[in-house]
Amino acid sequence: MKQLFLIGIGTGNPDHLTGEARRVMAEADLFLVPHKGDGKTNLADLRTQIIADVRNDATVALFDMPVRDESLPYIARVDAWHDEIARIWTDTMAQHPEARKVALLVWGDPSLYDSTLRIAARLHPKPDIRVVAGITSVQALTAAHAIPLNTLNAPVTISTGRRLRDQGWPSECETLVVMLDGTCAFQDLDGAQFDIWWGAYLGMAEQILDHGRLADVSDRIIARRAEARAAHGWIMDTYLLRRLPEK
Amino acid sequence: MKQLFLIGIGTGNPDHLTGEARRVMAEADLFLVPHKGDGKTNLADLRTQIIADVRNDATVALFDMPVRDESLPYIARVDAWHDEIARIWTDTMAQHPEARKVALLVWGDPSLYDSTLRIAARLHPKPDIRVVAGITSVQALTAAHAIPLNTLNAPVTISTGRRLRDQGWPSECETLVVMLDGTCAFQDLDGAQFDIWWGAYLGMAEQILDHGRLADVSDRIIARRAEARAAHGWIMDTYLLRRLPEK
Ligand SMILES: C[S@@+](CC[C@H](N)C(=O)[O-])C[C@H]1O[C@@H](n2cnc3c(N)ncnc32)[C@H](O)[C@@H]1O
Ligand SMILES: C[S@@+](CC[C@H](N)C(=O)[O-])C[C@H]1O[C@@H](n2cnc3c(N)ncnc32)[C@H](O)[C@@H]1O
Repeated sequence: MKQLFLIGIGTGNPDHLTGEARRVMAEADLFLVPHKGDGKTNLADLRTQIIADVRNDATVALFDMPVRDESLPYIARVDAWHDEIARIWTDTMAQHPEARKVALLVWGDPSLYDSTLRIAARLHPKPDIRVVAGITSVQALTAAHAIPLNTLNAPVTISTGRRLRDQGWPSECETLVVMLDGTCAFQDLDGAQFDIWWGAYLGMAEQILDHGRLADVSDRIIARRAEARAAHGWIMDTYLLRRLPEK
Repeated sequence: MKQLFLIGIGTGNPDHLTGEARRVMAEADLFLVPHKGDGKTNLADLRTQIIADVRNDATVALFDMPVRDESLPYIARVDAWHDEIARIWTDTMAQHPEARKVALLVWGDPSLYDSTLRIAARLHPKPDIRVVAGITSVQALTAAHAIPLNTLNAPVTISTGRRLRDQGWPSECETLVVMLDGTCAFQDLDGAQFDIWWGAYLGMAEQILDHGRLADVSDRIIARRAEARAAHGWIMDTYLLRRLPEK
């Protein structure tokens, strides 16, 4: 039975790597690494660089990410895409029959808004799957701002930009962390009622931070985001919103 | 100006330590370490052991945690306790005037249900605070079970046992991670409606996992928790509940 290691590598800082990630990488016989193709060239490079740092003798199999079939409706499209990736992994592993321990490096933590686990569940024969936790962008955000995620013993919700845009502020929520937001969904909220802590390229040399009362900083964040995105050709950002206590 | 490093060390596995944590620890002039006193002797030892692993020349100042004044109401009690800890840190640092970089090791990640940042905010003069992210028990839980935290693009809420017990299942919630639960608050839910993934001593040699339909495993988890707690004298556990789709 093959072992498949899904290794969280943190959010762009090679220093986010845990001892466990290093140890597991040191044991892997084969690394499956997506070939560029996502327009974020330096991210693909980062994976290759992290592997080279830990293992100068690694066997790396680069694979091309399939293209999503935009003609399908959302769920069916994601489904077909995951099947296709699983097929590519199976083929690639078949080309390395001697490799018993196969590693995939996952951005951040493999549990959070990532499909690697779902794709791995489609493999036949089923490998033995082992997950190595990594620093998430949520933690990279709170660490960079040196803030707590929750207020004293209170809950926290993590959600997506699309959901905030489509469904508004979740009921009974005080702290909301928003990921996967391409459209600055915070701009539809009443800026007087919220504080925001925003971060882009967290953990990376390009890291940008901003925070304040949403009403005061919303426009500035939108502008800085657009500028940074234009300059780098891509952006990854995350933010925490805290609703102010009612007066 | 002193620098104060709050370093997330993960949840009991020394291998959770990131490269950043190691690097910052290597630079620290002084480590503030709470002296046992919390009844969890092996946890205090773990901190000392982690420091010894990374730095055999570390200056460690052990301090006694103050006792909470149980006569005060909850918020006032926590407030007074944090003030008292801040005072102890100030005194301890004053005894090491040459130490410019001071480190505190924080269980899991410093942002999540931890008071270190709140205590540090009470220090005078204000140090320059830098946070190093660590693996949380949420991630240790999902990694141990090899499960995603969220379902496809859906939100996740992290909360406490007390809140689940007092306020019930949060409205509109699908996935809830529960921490700080001394009373198995899941037992008040309708077990047919939820799946649970439970973990105790996550990341540690003592790790115990269980999962299943809540109705099937609730009693078993309650029993295993009580046994483990009796055997070790203490327990730390976390669980993820997923509400099943309505039929
Ligand atoms: C597909 S999700 C992957 C999340 C990842 N598994 C984690 O644990 O953070 C991608 C989203 O994560 C967030 N993200 C990832 N890396 C980031 C970074 N370096 N800075 C800011 N946000 C980041 C952004 O919200 C982005 O849209
Ligand atoms: C005061 S909070 C600290 C959380 C920590 N800062 C983190 O990032 O996980 C303590 C709670 O964390 C959870 N916890 C911490 N370590 C754990 C472990 N090794 N296994 C299971 N749960 C743990 C338990 O729910 C416990 O009640």
